[in-house]
Amino acid sequence: MSADISVDHVVDTVHRLHEQTPLVQCITNYVSMDLAANVLNAAHASPAMVHDEREAAEMARLASAVVVNIGTLSPPWVTGMHEAASVAAERGIPWVLDPVAVGATAYRRETTNALLTHRPAVIRANASEIVALATAQGAGRGVDSTHDSTAVVEQAQALASATGSVVVVSGASDVVTDSVTTVIVDGGDPRMPLISALGCAATALVGGAAAVAPTPLLGAVAAMAMLANAGERAGRSAQGPGTLRPALLDALWAQRPEDLRDVVLR
Amino acid sequence: MSADISVDHVVDTVHRLHEQTPLVQCITNYVSMDLAANVLNAAHASPAMVHDEREAAEMARLASAVVVNIGTLSPPWVTGMHEAASVAAERGIPWVLDPVAVGATAYRRETTNALLTHRPAVIRANASEIVALATAQGAGRGVDSTHDSTAVVEQAQALASATGSVVVVSGASDVVTDSVTTVIVDGGDPRMPLISALGCAATALVGGAAAVAPTPLLGAVAAMAMLANAGERAGRSAQGPGTLRPALLDALWAQRPEDLRDVVLR
Amino acid sequence: MSADISVDHVVDTVHRLHEQTPLVQCITNYVSMDLAANVLNAAHASPAMVHDEREAAEMARLASAVVVNIGTLSPPWVTGMHEAASVAAERGIPWVLDPVAVGATAYRRETTNALLTHRPAVIRANASEIVALATAQGAGRGVDSTHDSTAVVEQAQALASATGSVVVVSGASDVVTDSVTTVIVDGGDPRMPLISALGCAATALVGGAAAVAPTPLLGAVAAMAMLANAGERAGRSAQGPGTLRPALLDALWAQRPEDLRDVVLR
Repeated sequence: MSADISVDHVVDTVHRLHEQTPLVQCITNYVSMDLAANVLNAAHASPAMVHDEREAAEMARLASAVVVNIGTLSPPWVTGMHEAASVAAERGIPWVLDPVAVGATAYRRETTNALLTHRPAVIRANASEIVALATAQGAGRGVDSTHDSTAVVEQAQALASATGSVVVVSGASDVVTDSVTTVIVDGGDPRMPLISALGCAATALVGGAAAVAPTPLLGAVAAMAMLANAGERAGRSAQGPGTLRPALLDALWAQRPEDLRDVVLR
Repeated sequence: MSADISVDHVVDTVHRLHEQTPLVQCITNYVSMDLAANVLNAAHASPAMVHDEREAAEMARLASAVVVNIGTLSPPWVTGMHEAASVAAERGIPWVLDPVAVGATAYRRETTNALLTHRPAVIRANASEIVALATAQGAGRGVDSTHDSTAVVEQAQALASATGSVVVVSGASDVVTDSVTTVIVDGGDPRMPLISALGCAATALVGGAAAVAPTPLLGAVAAMAMLANAGERAGRSAQGPGTLRPALLDALWAQRPEDLRDVVLR
Repeated sequence: MSADISVDHVVDTVHRLHEQTPLVQCITNYVSMDLAANVLNAAHASPAMVHDEREAAEMARLASAVVVNIGTLSPPWVTGMHEAASVAAERGIPWVLDPVAVGATAYRRETTNALLTHRPAVIRANASEIVALATAQGAGRGVDSTHDSTAVVEQAQALASATGSVVVVSGASDVVTDSVTTVIVDGGDPRMPLISALGCAATALVGGAAAVAPTPLLGAVAAMAMLANAGERAGRSAQGPGTLRPALLDALWAQRPEDLRDVVLR
């Protein structure tokens, strides 16, 4: 663990999240809408799903963070993504990019490249997507991760360095880096990847935590630590991925900032 | 409680709902789709999510009620909303409006104003949205309610009087008014607001109950009473907002009309 | 039960599904997105929800099966459906059609007729929809099934014969036919129809199983058997349709291929 990020900082960030209940505008894919909103609600944040170009920028002026996820993209949505991301950049509030399956199609690569010009505070993805972004070549195969997160630390650091964004690689262990400082968050439950769109919901929570944290790096670490800790607790009672989902929401909702002292950062 | 609405009327309405299983067309936001459909199914109604202008009017001719929710609006959807609402008005079947976050953006205010010309049978919203509508000035801050429902009874009555619609303000206690008669429905569970889109699902259920009730006022009271009662029962076993959701669906499904005798109206 | 399809074949297909984790592209309705993705994940397949014309064909070239569901259709989505289905047909990978509420509106009938020109490997629907398709006349009333599945075996066989597709009629018992061979799959739980979009999720699972099975007929039987078996197991602990859903996902995830020996085919 870097000396720059301690568990005390994480506990403090969760305190702020619970007190400030930041408004997080999400322009996210159809699969993730329900879970992302419920994760934000359970974590004491306030979700607003507003995507159309007629109001995306206006909402971004009210929001404390913006989350953009390309999972089920189409041109009208991409327009709204640009509107919201540019307002966020202009206002200096964090915006978070989730480049779902960026390696799979040209449309995703082009859209992601165009969105990167607004300089996201954080990019959250799985290992395959990070590799695809970092190498700018297709990694294919939908949204599955075919690489281990800790195996791509160097690519994550290179991507962070190239973009100026904090990069989060989620996996069995989560890697969070701003290229200089790299933190590994352990924990969670091995069945979490079977909850569809939980990665997208993690991106939304990164938005919530980044809205209140002193730095995007700390916000990203805090969000991943919250999920790792809640997932681990939820896993004790869950029978499988189906019951893990409501149990995870319960655990997030019941989570006290001090519970984050159980999380191991390295 | 008004003398006009008794628990006997509510019990009778739930009987009708279970017997008639009305077809409820929902043009609703992406976050709420899943939960609204499941709530209607659990309550013995029949949901149909049909929004495109090529079929919205045709479906509204088959439906027993229409539900319009502006949570994630965009122009093609707004066109379908107008089509379905105007057919409902023409046919004399109830249609219900949910003006999600109407105070937040100009697009929402304009869309809501345009939809109100079709004269909804019921408007269901939270206290902030009712205040925004009643005062025709922005209340901001996404879909959260920053006012207590019972604190806005006068605004709800004024809105009902101005629009000719029954107005439902959901909250810890639900306010239902047609401007002359005002009913307060107590009950539920304090964690219900943490279930994303449960308000939208309540709107859908109001559509189902209004389809079979002698008056929209009674339909709205019955729907809110069903949720209050089911939420309270579900809350006894739920560990948090995550497990409250499936438990609520179970409780709605197991609800007998006579169970509504436990609800306190005032 | 036909001599052509035995429980051994089903067990073998589930083995293949678990080993090959096929990528299943779903262009499906908004209500079903979440459940379809979670069912595929729980069954060890890999979902990809990609619908826009800018990438639907490209993704279909990576996929092992394509699933098209018209539940909440609109023109841009229909364009993507044609793109993906034609690539699937061209590549010889199975594509599965779910003609939701095809009897209800002209737009659904026209869209379904146009999609049928790409010759789906499997059509999965409820009895009302099969009757509507088979008789090419409206059956109305949203997505509810107003006919018993086993009462429409002849229409299913006629439809299979006319289209060259395997036809699946889901219901208390599921009928699967290629017109020559007809298999009835018993099992499940009577509360399964109350889980919104479970039929759509079944269609997605048929896509996953058809991707790995020697024939679409066997794939369809295996998928319906998996759900019947998992639903039955889940039903033992579920209190209602709300808790049945996570329990069903748990049961699918825990299902071993050998568990399918419990399923009765006839």
